[in-house]
Amino acid sequence: MKVVIAPDSFKESLTAIQVADSIEKGFRTSFPDEDIVKIPMADGGEGTVKSLVDATNGTIVEKTVTGPLGEPVQAFFGLLGNGGKTAVIEMAAASGLHLVPADKRNPLVTTTRGTGELISAALEQDVEKIIIGIGGSATNDGGAGMARALGAKLLDEKGSEIGEGGGSLDELASIDVSGMDPRLKLVKIEVACDVVNPLTGEKGASAIFGPQKGATPEMVSRLDKNLSHYARIIEKDLGKSIGEVPGSGAAGGLGGGLLAFLSAELKRGIDIIIEATNFRELVKDASLVITGEGKIDSQTISGKTPIGVAKTAKQYGVPVLALAGNVASDFEIFREHGIDAVFSIVPGVIPLSDAFEYAAEYVERAAANIASLIRIAKGKDFS
Amino acid sequence: MKVVIAPDSFKESLTAIQVADSIEKGFRTSFPDEDIVKIPMADGGEGTVKSLVDATNGTIVEKTVTGPLGEPVQAFFGLLGNGGKTAVIEMAAASGLHLVPADKRNPLVTTTRGTGELISAALEQDVEKIIIGIGGSATNDGGAGMARALGAKLLDEKGSEIGEGGGSLDELASIDVSGMDPRLKLVKIEVACDVVNPLTGEKGASAIFGPQKGATPEMVSRLDKNLSHYARIIEKDLGKSIGEVPGSGAAGGLGGGLLAFLSAELKRGIDIIIEATNFRELVKDASLVITGEGKIDSQTISGKTPIGVAKTAKQYGVPVLALAGNVASDFEIFREHGIDAVFSIVPGVIPLSDAFEYAAEYVERAAANIASLIRIAKGKDFS
Repeated sequence: MKVVIAPDSFKESLTAIQVADSIEKGFRTSFPDEDIVKIPMADGGEGTVKSLVDATNGTIVEKTVTGPLGEPVQAFFGLLGNGGKTAVIEMAAASGLHLVPADKRNPLVTTTRGTGELISAALEQDVEKIIIGIGGSATNDGGAGMARALGAKLLDEKGSEIGEGGGSLDELASIDVSGMDPRLKLVKIEVACDVVNPLTGEKGASAIFGPQKGATPEMVSRLDKNLSHYARIIEKDLGKSIGEVPGSGAAGGLGGGLLAFLSAELKRGIDIIIEATNFRELVKDASLVITGEGKIDSQTISGKTPIGVAKTAKQYGVPVLALAGNVASDFEIFREHGIDAVFSIVPGVIPLSDAFEYAAEYVERAAANIASLIRIAKGKDFS
Repeated sequence: MKVVIAPDSFKESLTAIQVADSIEKGFRTSFPDEDIVKIPMADGGEGTVKSLVDATNGTIVEKTVTGPLGEPVQAFFGLLGNGGKTAVIEMAAASGLHLVPADKRNPLVTTTRGTGELISAALEQDVEKIIIGIGGSATNDGGAGMARALGAKLLDEKGSEIGEGGGSLDELASIDVSGMDPRLKLVKIEVACDVVNPLTGEKGASAIFGPQKGATPEMVSRLDKNLSHYARIIEKDLGKSIGEVPGSGAAGGLGGGLLAFLSAELKRGIDIIIEATNFRELVKDASLVITGEGKIDSQTISGKTPIGVAKTAKQYGVPVLALAGNVASDFEIFREHGIDAVFSIVPGVIPLSDAFEYAAEYVERAAANIASLIRIAKGKDFS
């Protein structure tokens, strides 16, 4: 029968397809002829484009866009292999915190313009759907830069374009979307969003995520006020109320900007990935699903890849095993969420550097042990 | 069907029966009604008495004997539950290196007399067999102290008793065994011995094991000469040639002394344990054996518990799983030796102190995962 291998990446050591390949290699030591389907998974965060491209045999498209500080950066997006009708973007590829040196981090000025340029580039490919993962941003501009790259005009009282970045939003007096790319109306935009923060307030984008992007308390206060003002102008000119929508505060308010300007749908990352990979269809007649993630802990429980995979597999009564570098919590919690067993790949007390360096070997070994145990169990009687 | 749980202790954290209990607890989460037989194992080293007593529902007998430096020490031996006809002694309980503070370690003077006293105490219990584990000694006296505690006389040229310890053996001129305990002739003595070192020479007791007991290079040379002299007198007066026998150099030559004075049989520890626990009879109709050890590595391969357990189980076609704190080598080696799968209990990158502190919980969790996987495998089709 069929075994579906559907792990996330092991952050900082293996991509999802590398994990899947290692699991397959180990599993085949006991089941050389098993029908194995590998579906590299993701959660909408880093590695999502790579996983979805690998899972669907798609392609990566490189594109130079405007970086968070206005400088050119080499970014990319993915075209899925399902006829090329779906594009996948990670906002961090264009507007990510990792692109800004620590001493230059300033969410008053950083912009999501590059993310808009990636969306524009995806539109050039005649896609019908764009998936956008929005983790890891350097920005706090409410997606203003993104909207402007796609043709929106953000004007001050004198009718001039305001400056870039969250620090300039207080100048905003009106928004003109008449010049926005008309193809946006024909494309479905899905945003992979696992945070529920509103745009503003004490749980808002500025207060919660501003500091890690370099905002001082004073800057947080100013950014939060600016986003409130931005939301009011959006309501006035676009007729959309985004301030309180859960997830509108994601990625410095890019979540809210995508809602307002692109009529995007915010969804859990794993749900988007499961749909994009056709996971339901692939899993429904499987004997076993093997998933995994670098770290499986209480954060994983609240909506990351292995739990999403397990939830789907359970709908079809398919058992689920998980492999992880670190299994932090009590395994009973995993069982309650549909994961029947969780094995750490770590073969003993080792330094973290070894866990990263030998991750592929450890994954393979764990999978081989699991396969051997399944082989044994098939051949013997248990009550 | 039946599952046999037969682990060694996890050194420095869990006794063998604690490991077995934890495995059972985890296993029962998926198989609450399975017939489970727990047989705590050992390899002849530290923990052997405890394991065999636990495995056979025997008793521990406490006894104050002469310590390595002549001081009284509180030692013990075991009486197995099979009618009390077998005693088990760890020489280290009476003559172990752990009983001597580091600054007092001196194999010129340390004696195995306490080990002889334990043997004597065992004889008082009317046993038919004595199993002696001889790891961890503080001594280099060729078992001279042991022999004297049991009635042998070691005399100098003037017919006076020589001093204690390996440093006095050069005074030895003759041995008189006429006064030795006559019950020794009626008792079978088995020595659990996993080293093959001869009594003397560059692979002998003094050269290889002397330094860790506090011997300087000059002391090693003197001790080695003394043991050679000792072997010549044994050959002259007892008619036994022990110098080249593999294992005669174990425990500072206690192996040789047991051969010479007690006609003991030197055997692999695990083989003795398998016989003493009636392991063959218990395992032959099992569906699965779960074994384990704190560390499974190349040293384990060469004759420690999990491999011995696997070898026996394989004679009856019973599959074998192992749990370990550290799995150091490539798992293929274990498969070649009859272990079908080896799982580390370690749930991730953790400090050694956690591995010790939470070992019972980790063992239980690993066993629960394994049981869950077996449960899954039974219910699904695989090619």
